[in-house]
Amino acid sequence: MATLCRPEVAVPEYIVTREDTLRLAERLHAGKPQLNLALRLITNTGVQKRHIVQPLERTLEHPGFETRNRIYEREAKRRVPPVVRQALAHAELTARDIDAIIFVSCTGFMMPSMTAYLVNSMGFRHDTRQIPMAQLGCAAGAAAISRAHDFCEAHPGANVLIAACEFCSLCYQPTDDDIGSLLSDGLFGDAVGAVVVRGSGGTGIRLERNAAYLIPDTEEWISYAVKNTGFHFQLDKRVPGTMKPLAPVLRQLVARHGWNVGNLDFYIIHAGGPRILNDLCRFLEVPQEAFRYSRATLTEYGNIASVVVLDSLGRMFAENQVSEGAKGLIAGFGPGITAEMAVGSWVTGRGQTRDSARSAAVA
Amino acid sequence: MATLCRPEVAVPEYIVTREDTLRLAERLHAGKPQLNLALRLITNTGVQKRHIVQPLERTLEHPGFETRNRIYEREAKRRVPPVVRQALAHAELTARDIDAIIFVSCTGFMMPSMTAYLVNSMGFRHDTRQIPMAQLGCAAGAAAISRAHDFCEAHPGANVLIAACEFCSLCYQPTDDDIGSLLSDGLFGDAVGAVVVRGSGGTGIRLERNAAYLIPDTEEWISYAVKNTGFHFQLDKRVPGTMKPLAPVLRQLVARHGWNVGNLDFYIIHAGGPRILNDLCRFLEVPQEAFRYSRATLTEYGNIASVVVLDSLGRMFAENQVSEGAKGLIAGFGPGITAEMAVGSWVTGRGQTRDSARSAAVA
Repeated sequence: MATLCRPEVAVPEYIVTREDTLRLAERLHAGKPQLNLALRLITNTGVQKRHIVQPLERTLEHPGFETRNRIYEREAKRRVPPVVRQALAHAELTARDIDAIIFVSCTGFMMPSMTAYLVNSMGFRHDTRQIPMAQLGCAAGAAAISRAHDFCEAHPGANVLIAACEFCSLCYQPTDDDIGSLLSDGLFGDAVGAVVVRGSGGTGIRLERNAAYLIPDTEEWISYAVKNTGFHFQLDKRVPGTMKPLAPVLRQLVARHGWNVGNLDFYIIHAGGPRILNDLCRFLEVPQEAFRYSRATLTEYGNIASVVVLDSLGRMFAENQVSEGAKGLIAGFGPGITAEMAVGSWVTGRGQTRDSARSAAVA
Repeated sequence: MATLCRPEVAVPEYIVTREDTLRLAERLHAGKPQLNLALRLITNTGVQKRHIVQPLERTLEHPGFETRNRIYEREAKRRVPPVVRQALAHAELTARDIDAIIFVSCTGFMMPSMTAYLVNSMGFRHDTRQIPMAQLGCAAGAAAISRAHDFCEAHPGANVLIAACEFCSLCYQPTDDDIGSLLSDGLFGDAVGAVVVRGSGGTGIRLERNAAYLIPDTEEWISYAVKNTGFHFQLDKRVPGTMKPLAPVLRQLVARHGWNVGNLDFYIIHAGGPRILNDLCRFLEVPQEAFRYSRATLTEYGNIASVVVLDSLGRMFAENQVSEGAKGLIAGFGPGITAEMAVGSWVTGRGQTRDSARSAAVA
């Protein structure tokens, strides 16, 4: 049994509001024919603000791929450990209880991966498995949950730490001014997150089934152009329409589990953009309210890539309204176009670790 | 039960002999104080030739990260599918029997990963899980085997395809002339490989246990500097000495399995370089002969990164001398410094698939 515990998410201290974004787009792209459409699209995202790792002026400078990646490494090493510590605390585990670390991030590149840094600097055992994944983009958060689930099934009793680190602002490319790029400049935000999947005990979502789906022949729809200036994010205008082919896939997965997708107790959905959420609501025939966690993430932080599902999940924990046995769905979407999906039920752990059992006994 | 079947490996058609390498180093680095040591180290690698994806002159040009990565993508799409097809044939499976694709490669970067291309172009099911890993370097081949093993444990009856693609020549950096870089220029080669891990049936190594180990505080010993010119491979002179801390880890893993590491029937070891193999032989107290597959890979292809373990494994299959129940060890080493390890026994499948059973019945 694998339980997805309470995650921890942190956003950086530098804030870009929607007004900042719109003013900036008007200034940088004045007179371009695509500007008005871009401004409209940015307004429609519903994103109120985003958080980024550097002041906006420094982000706009783009000092080159090498410097950008150095900033990525510095900020990752600074910002990921605190959320990892908190995720361990939420799961009532210590670093030494962890058997595998899955690290997902598509906005910088390090070899060795951050997994090695975390093991060396945070007291993880040196036999911890390292599972870094860099190429799943926004789908990586949900993919990490499924791979952690698999790891717990393969190694009964094992615990897996997931860390997600996305500094999308470091992939800002000042010379890209197609509609997709202008929209992305107003949509993506930075964040880090971590969560533990416990092999036994724990309070959270008991992971019961996972699946993935690649929409045929959509490889070019979300992609990186790898250039001397770094990763250039490329977004096709057909992406917002992808819930039409994906909704039946989600429905089918849930049905295989004996449940009805329109009738679940919770939904943790990647907030790629407003149309993704609106369409999926409609196709799955669920009330808007059902996606409130994802909507809040999008409004307050923007699309924070692989961290979205962790943040939405965190909001559900904070709301504290889910009851024992509640049924739910987790879904991430990203390049491929790929959907990574999981279904599970809410469980409340009791006396889940020796320590917490002891505290309970003492109390 | 997960069985690691017969792999398929292919090397490109352009050949660089040891003599080519030595002559080239003399020409490019004439008069530099580090040249003589570099020539000696290159000679001592035992590498007789390497295969690369472009003629040597074009490799030396280094047209920049963007063009290099475009060549990477073109060559990966051209060279990986044939070995995948053959690996499926070796496993007596079709693309539609595969439930997950693990793609490992550290010498180029694509998002989406090659997994999406393989699914779309080779008839894999669109619900195939994609598990791309780019940051495990030379350890990735063995890591992929362990993750495939885990996947089969988590999803009984599932089959996993592993594909490894390393075009090390595309990471050649003409301006890097420290000893580690000059040695690397004479050590690494290009290759692609694929292998299937079957969830049931199949002839090959039944995977029984896996483990990983990170040598404390060695993150800087093998690493990439990510620059505007691409990935710059950095090799510390302490790397060849890493078998001393790793040999006890291998010994311990095998002992936990109830076996004696000095007394196994086969060893599939990453051939990072000659000292890695020599030291490990000595520390594990096994005859030189025991590492003959890895030595042959190193001599004929150079260090082909994550593909080494697949190629060594392929040589063992070709030799065809392993008998039922033979006990063995698989180990990959890479950045971290990380060891990825597995132990298993030789099994011969009978009537392993419906089709082969049918053929057997008809025959």
